[in-house]
Amino acid sequence: MNPAEQLIALGFEDVQSTDDDRGVLIDEVGIEELSYPVSVERRDGSLQQTVSDVNMTVQLAHHRRGIHMSRLVEVLDAHAESIGPSGFREMVAETRLRLDSKHSRVALRFPYFLRRRAPASAISSMARYECCLTGVSRADGTKTEIGVRVPVTSLCPCSKEISDYGAHNQRGYVDISVASPWPGGQASGIWFEDLIEVAESAGSAPIYPLLKRTDEREVTMQAYDNPAFVEDIVRDVVVALRDDIRVASAEVRACNQESIHDHNAVAQLRWERVGE
Amino acid sequence: MNPAEQLIALGFEDVQSTDDDRGVLIDEVGIEELSYPVSVERRDGSLQQTVSDVNMTVQLAHHRRGIHMSRLVEVLDAHAESIGPSGFREMVAETRLRLDSKHSRVALRFPYFLRRRAPASAISSMARYECCLTGVSRADGTKTEIGVRVPVTSLCPCSKEISDYGAHNQRGYVDISVASPWPGGQASGIWFEDLIEVAESAGSAPIYPLLKRTDEREVTMQAYDNPAFVEDIVRDVVVALRDDIRVASAEVRACNQESIHDHNAVAQLRWERVGE
Amino acid sequence: MNPAEQLIALGFEDVQSTDDDRGVLIDEVGIEELSYPVSVERRDGSLQQTVSDVNMTVQLAHHRRGIHMSRLVEVLDAHAESIGPSGFREMVAETRLRLDSKHSRVALRFPYFLRRRAPASAISSMARYECCLTGVSRADGTKTEIGVRVPVTSLCPCSKEISDYGAHNQRGYVDISVASPWPGGQASGIWFEDLIEVAESAGSAPIYPLLKRTDEREVTMQAYDNPAFVEDIVRDVVVALRDDIRVASAEVRACNQESIHDHNAVAQLRWERVGE
Amino acid sequence: MNPAEQLIALGFEDVQSTDDDRGVLIDEVGIEELSYPVSVERRDGSLQQTVSDVNMTVQLAHHRRGIHMSRLVEVLDAHAESIGPSGFREMVAETRLRLDSKHSRVALRFPYFLRRRAPASAISSMARYECCLTGVSRADGTKTEIGVRVPVTSLCPCSKEISDYGAHNQRGYVDISVASPWPGGQASGIWFEDLIEVAESAGSAPIYPLLKRTDEREVTMQAYDNPAFVEDIVRDVVVALRDDIRVASAEVRACNQESIHDHNAVAQLRWERVGE
Repeated sequence: MNPAEQLIALGFEDVQSTDDDRGVLIDEVGIEELSYPVSVERRDGSLQQTVSDVNMTVQLAHHRRGIHMSRLVEVLDAHAESIGPSGFREMVAETRLRLDSKHSRVALRFPYFLRRRAPASAISSMARYECCLTGVSRADGTKTEIGVRVPVTSLCPCSKEISDYGAHNQRGYVDISVASPWPGGQASGIWFEDLIEVAESAGSAPIYPLLKRTDEREVTMQAYDNPAFVEDIVRDVVVALRDDIRVASAEVRACNQESIHDHNAVAQLRWERVGE
Repeated sequence: MNPAEQLIALGFEDVQSTDDDRGVLIDEVGIEELSYPVSVERRDGSLQQTVSDVNMTVQLAHHRRGIHMSRLVEVLDAHAESIGPSGFREMVAETRLRLDSKHSRVALRFPYFLRRRAPASAISSMARYECCLTGVSRADGTKTEIGVRVPVTSLCPCSKEISDYGAHNQRGYVDISVASPWPGGQASGIWFEDLIEVAESAGSAPIYPLLKRTDEREVTMQAYDNPAFVEDIVRDVVVALRDDIRVASAEVRACNQESIHDHNAVAQLRWERVGE
Repeated sequence: MNPAEQLIALGFEDVQSTDDDRGVLIDEVGIEELSYPVSVERRDGSLQQTVSDVNMTVQLAHHRRGIHMSRLVEVLDAHAESIGPSGFREMVAETRLRLDSKHSRVALRFPYFLRRRAPASAISSMARYECCLTGVSRADGTKTEIGVRVPVTSLCPCSKEISDYGAHNQRGYVDISVASPWPGGQASGIWFEDLIEVAESAGSAPIYPLLKRTDEREVTMQAYDNPAFVEDIVRDVVVALRDDIRVASAEVRACNQESIHDHNAVAQLRWERVGE
Repeated sequence: MNPAEQLIALGFEDVQSTDDDRGVLIDEVGIEELSYPVSVERRDGSLQQTVSDVNMTVQLAHHRRGIHMSRLVEVLDAHAESIGPSGFREMVAETRLRLDSKHSRVALRFPYFLRRRAPASAISSMARYECCLTGVSRADGTKTEIGVRVPVTSLCPCSKEISDYGAHNQRGYVDISVASPWPGGQASGIWFEDLIEVAESAGSAPIYPLLKRTDEREVTMQAYDNPAFVEDIVRDVVVALRDDIRVASAEVRACNQESIHDHNAVAQLRWERVGE
């Protein structure tokens, strides 16, 4: 007897599997805030080990009492070492099948690091980008989205215009999440590095963990030469994504930790490529 | 000359008001994470002073460069002392008008306190419920939603069934957000207290800040007598809301901080009343 | 019979009051992350209603099994409406007495708002300062500390020096916590407003929730004229506190959300007035 | 010319290196909230890749204006791949030397994963423990501390005693941080796994990411059989550490996310081995 059979032999009911008569379908049932080690593919196909925050849910039919949540962790554990464009797609689909559901949703969010060189000294360090993968699976297919959160410097165009010298600037974060029109093989698809480049180009200057003073001089003047409102940042991102036919739709958000206020300035939009 | 005219006299451009030719409409532009003191109406019409996290955004037409964010804070400051069903509605509409936009959105989130008596000793203390008000205004009208997050005890039906004694239980949070079919006057409408009652009834037992031992005995046994999965909690909330004709639609979520795991169990759904 | 007597009559032991033979004194036992409505005195003696995060702990002697935590909430509820220099002191002392302990510690942390005028337009809004009160009571007396966290703009002196134009700047937070040599009556003592003024003077420019463009011009140039490292900020705070004989000791911290990095710069020190 | 020399040739001053006459020594100056990829040694000597939150500070003498913060990131980048008992010690010492300071402090905090088998089914998954390494270096030596945060189930002894059935229980976290009397080589020293075992034994039952129903039965009854207050948990940790002569001192903390309250219960103490 396996463990589940032993429990039945002991006379214990499988409560989750009993019927439910309240007539309420539940859109998503599952787990959240599970922290798990994962290996994520880089654009060049190599693997990066990191730690992901994991959300996994499935739809629950109106006539069933509950789901067996342990199966979600089993699916995660089986796929955690191969998180790439195709591996993630399989994980989302298997979540649906293993839980015997019509609809599954998996969201991973993890820090992703790239070695970056400072602009003048060329000294290098590991830059952190918060990345996410979100997938939805139904009987008619599985759809995934990839996203990044990229820190940038933004310098206020208004402050520069109306001041005799100086201009307030601050750390900002650019969020881009895109869906691809194709089944996203790595060859044809878009990956984190592509979106990071788009986001950084839209800020006033990139951000680096390690800058020597010659680098600091360069990014200070670069930011002053490229003022950008949050409105400008999200528009420049859309302009860049419009030119990339791998992108079918996008959610774009810019958030500035205003240096002259104790609150943030934000701009966000949803963009979809319309029929061509 | 007012200050804005002085800047023009000095030769400074109003950068936000210049034209934009990128052709990108922005869904939401504004401020977030602004913490502000507010006075919120209770169900009985009296006022409660609390502190709100504030988000205010407007749509930006494709041909305009930016918005004047300071006007958002001006609208907030003018309305912060009268946050009730009608006062909030006016604030959302004025946000749209003051920013000369087609669409505005305001979201407030604040702790809301009710004095509660412990079930056996009747000793009282202030219980905290995180509440939110969200409103959207367009030329054709203004729509608001009210929401609560209510802490409850939940006791696992499976653990109780399969164990010879005991059952794991934990703190959980029930989120309910509802939209009303009518322009929500306080007399006809639903308010925080109503939703808090629904949420508490759906858990295994309510939660109190202050319990003497006789109370602890009571809530311990009450929870053991009323086991509930997150699936059960969201369904019981829907069953209760279905009977309340003031509710047109609802988003419901239950989240358990599982005592046997270091991650959470969640269930969520969107429910809408269909044509009657 | 009161409820506790009823439990004894039922044959239930008061587990917390039993003996313990492990021989381990516990420095602090109590509650944390309790959110409670409080009324805090302003410098002018009027009251401000806000919401506090509450920590209350007492020392537990080695021979006793546990404390009765509900008594902590009872003491809090009795004092929450009168949090001023003397009211808080009484609350800390009563915590110790009510729990029959040799040592109590109470820490409150809450947002505190002051109406501020923008520097050029004189338009006003409510500025938020995170404030804290910490008190320790023993048989030989009760000692309290008051603290503030003040947002400021800081502009980097190095970036200004080495760049042909511009200078990176960012939002920073200045923390000051001071202990007073006297029993702190409000007349003789120091209060939040005093520390807020010291903190703001040490940054490159103050921060306001609401700035019109003429104000933005003023704070932009003020910041450029007053560059300050985190090192400068904490030193300037100490220089100001040294001149205030009401201050016996201080903990000072400055933290900049660097606009050119995705990490923070910090400086902190503990200063004590030496024998005079 | 290297970059620094180029800046001098351009006539730019090294602002940080200028004199300061305010007469204020600063205890700690540096960086915080830097997220960096690191490789951490396991007890068996193998390496685990994870992501660390990094704090690095040095003392600043009263006569110097500032520190060169980029050097902190350089030291981190050079040592990030070899975080073990000796590698970390070298990193702390090099921080002090590279910044030419009398005192350095480095704190790393990262998730650390161990593959764990469920108690009945023996199915395995990766359990997460938040670990930290803290080191201080002075001319007379370098001292390090290691710490863990371990999730456990705790079941309330009072609730069990006074209730006819059931007992409230919840997720809790046990923090242990210890300093070692010896220069901590891996052979002689204590490591994360040792502290995790101590913490888990002190709770009512361990926590696992993946439990089948037979496992859930086992941990439910194990918790009911082993009730523990936060007071009991910290005492049992001290009793275990007292017997381990590798431990010279410890900070111990237990925090329960009470299932019957919306606040936490805590107990904490500092323990030191006294002269033997």
